[in-house]
Amino acid sequence: MQSIDLLIEPRWLVPVQPHGVVLEHHAIAIDADRIVDILPAADARARFAPRDHVVLSEHALIPGLVNAHTHNPMTLMRGLADDLPLMSWLKEHIWPAEAKAIGPEFVRDGIELAVAEMLRGGTTCCNENYFFPDVQAATYRRLGFRAMIGLPVIEFPSAWASGRDEYFDKGLAVHDEFRDEPLLGTSFAPHAPYTVSDESFERIRMLSDQLDLPVHLHLHETAHEIEEARGTYGARPFARMQALGIVNDHLIAIHMTQLTDAEIAACAEAGVAVVHCPESNLKLASGFCPAEKLRRAGVTLAIGTDGCASNNDLDMFGEMRTAALLAKAVAEDARALDAASALDAATLGGARAMGWSERIGSIEVGKQADVVAVRLDDIETQPIYNVISQLVYAVGRHQVSDVWIAGQRKLRERVLVDLDISEIRAKARRWRERISGSA
Amino acid sequence: MQSIDLLIEPRWLVPVQPHGVVLEHHAIAIDADRIVDILPAADARARFAPRDHVVLSEHALIPGLVNAHTHNPMTLMRGLADDLPLMSWLKEHIWPAEAKAIGPEFVRDGIELAVAEMLRGGTTCCNENYFFPDVQAATYRRLGFRAMIGLPVIEFPSAWASGRDEYFDKGLAVHDEFRDEPLLGTSFAPHAPYTVSDESFERIRMLSDQLDLPVHLHLHETAHEIEEARGTYGARPFARMQALGIVNDHLIAIHMTQLTDAEIAACAEAGVAVVHCPESNLKLASGFCPAEKLRRAGVTLAIGTDGCASNNDLDMFGEMRTAALLAKAVAEDARALDAASALDAATLGGARAMGWSERIGSIEVGKQADVVAVRLDDIETQPIYNVISQLVYAVGRHQVSDVWIAGQRKLRERVLVDLDISEIRAKARRWRERISGSA
Repeated sequence: MQSIDLLIEPRWLVPVQPHGVVLEHHAIAIDADRIVDILPAADARARFAPRDHVVLSEHALIPGLVNAHTHNPMTLMRGLADDLPLMSWLKEHIWPAEAKAIGPEFVRDGIELAVAEMLRGGTTCCNENYFFPDVQAATYRRLGFRAMIGLPVIEFPSAWASGRDEYFDKGLAVHDEFRDEPLLGTSFAPHAPYTVSDESFERIRMLSDQLDLPVHLHLHETAHEIEEARGTYGARPFARMQALGIVNDHLIAIHMTQLTDAEIAACAEAGVAVVHCPESNLKLASGFCPAEKLRRAGVTLAIGTDGCASNNDLDMFGEMRTAALLAKAVAEDARALDAASALDAATLGGARAMGWSERIGSIEVGKQADVVAVRLDDIETQPIYNVISQLVYAVGRHQVSDVWIAGQRKLRERVLVDLDISEIRAKARRWRERISGSA
Repeated sequence: MQSIDLLIEPRWLVPVQPHGVVLEHHAIAIDADRIVDILPAADARARFAPRDHVVLSEHALIPGLVNAHTHNPMTLMRGLADDLPLMSWLKEHIWPAEAKAIGPEFVRDGIELAVAEMLRGGTTCCNENYFFPDVQAATYRRLGFRAMIGLPVIEFPSAWASGRDEYFDKGLAVHDEFRDEPLLGTSFAPHAPYTVSDESFERIRMLSDQLDLPVHLHLHETAHEIEEARGTYGARPFARMQALGIVNDHLIAIHMTQLTDAEIAACAEAGVAVVHCPESNLKLASGFCPAEKLRRAGVTLAIGTDGCASNNDLDMFGEMRTAALLAKAVAEDARALDAASALDAATLGGARAMGWSERIGSIEVGKQADVVAVRLDDIETQPIYNVISQLVYAVGRHQVSDVWIAGQRKLRERVLVDLDISEIRAKARRWRERISGSA
């Protein structure tokens, strides 16, 4: 008998890789932070002596969901301002609120709230994009949550940095400080083509090559962005990024609601990953990302929630469902982004986008044990004809029962293992008072 | 002190009428099946001696959600076949499954499962459309659930009726049998313009006038429907319905994804109600209903889930959110179908569509006590800047804690008062075995 840390026996196992497969009565063996075996449950019981043995008789076990674009500190501004055009939302509400609030404490408390929400909703990894990456990294490390930290670059001063050089210097210092953390990574996060100069993009391209870091960029979010860039630069932002050498396999392009067929082909050829944020794109009336066209062209497709000020949640189950539903109407084809492909985008697609597909995104031997159990015996998911369909089209995130990251249990039968919900709630309320100026 | 049956004191009260209002620390007084007062909680305690006093300190109280288009027996076919074009979905999967299953027991058991799901998700009224309206009515009556029962009319035989005359005869018998039931109503439910003849529509128009019954009709669901009708009838289905006298204030038009501005104006003028089923329209790639245009034109806008075989749930919170999000992208305006208007459509809009707005749809004195409490202290809905925004953009239906229909408590702190969940689950599993032919 081989001694291991953990054996999980779910009713159904959805490994994501191979695509579309559902294994019944199988078990996964985990030792330290890794998956060491996947095999029929009866064989597993004969072969392994686990220190912890978890039987999940009404559950599907899936890879942890990967939220491939988020601004998690903004969870503290959930629902602050809705139903407004982008510029009035940003200038009259979000920026003034940030001016009152932003700083290390806001970033720390917002991420705590976000991590609690993500864990309770089956998300085990996020691609973060905000100010104070040092505080972000320290907070994710302390909470044992897997995250890629964006190093912000923007051409105006903020509470984090006074100007271009400082953004780069402080960002690179954060990269150095956290480079050996097992759950963390860093990327460059130039805000958008309309707020970042050619000079900064050139520096990012060079550093991204040297350090092998992804570039996390809002790109082609709205038709207005394209139109304005044509005036300012005489080119679509994508073409300008091509000219600057940014369109390559380091690029994680967020939103991409405006794309020509040639741009889609160029993404496929260059190895660009596209992060689809369907609910944010709908809510801000940004446009429709051609998710199915991208997928068929072979572009890596991932899914993100965007920040809570424009969503208003970090619900990757909801986002996956919206992506699957919306893709069909946009493609005018009910077969578009089928359930298995949507689940793929929400897990392995995110891992690929971040360059972490050797490590996470599917349940495979040798990968990190980032796994999520989902109860399917609620009447809202009965009867069960097809487990993957149920996961995408009917499951609510509250059906997530248990979550492990790198083999560590983070949620146990709906209870957060190492976070105090009442304290998090109390902090959220204090931030609301501070931001809205009322109790 | 006035003796009453029930006093409910929520933290927030969202009456829907007046529009957009949130009352804090108010109470509603309920006697028998009606709301008899709405007043500050302190005054209520001084004035009323309630037999039951419910304090909901972290909750919003809203009118029960009205699901304005559903085929509830099909809940037993949830997820049976997904990601398929409409005709292959229908002909290769749904109809063969119905052929195996349909009958009084299927309708009864499917509605039980649906009622359990609706109550747990804050829905207190539905506009039902399926075969065996006699079984439907008896089941809703037994379960104490408010429903309008469609009397099906279609030009081909089914397990319910052998031909046109029998559809009318049996339908009218159901109408007569249940006409005095306080929670029930009936409508005519001609399936669609492409499956119902002019002769039947003429009979429906006459009977609907005489009996003052709504007409519940799938209309302009897809572009294909319009195209085909042009070939067969030389007119768009809406124009044919106009010529047949069906376009009037009895008409509840479902889907309506294809509409000219003139048709929208004609709906407004005639008092037609439109039921928007955004998730079904997306999933079947049917098209985009111009929800905001309809609303601005003054057309009554309601929201429906459609059946579980094409959604795959009866989640009106989810449907309301999808409606609010999608309307913005379709209208290319982030202000479209704001949160308060979406909540309106999911409550009072549905009541208006069904001709029941004097009775339900808002929390007002004299109306039926159909009310729903939603916990807002989950971290997923923290912090709270705006209660209505939170209800539409962040709440999950599992946050529904308590539900009353006509003053009767149907859900108590998440527990169904008069339904046995394990029995419902067991029945759903038996139907799956029968339909899919495997355990």
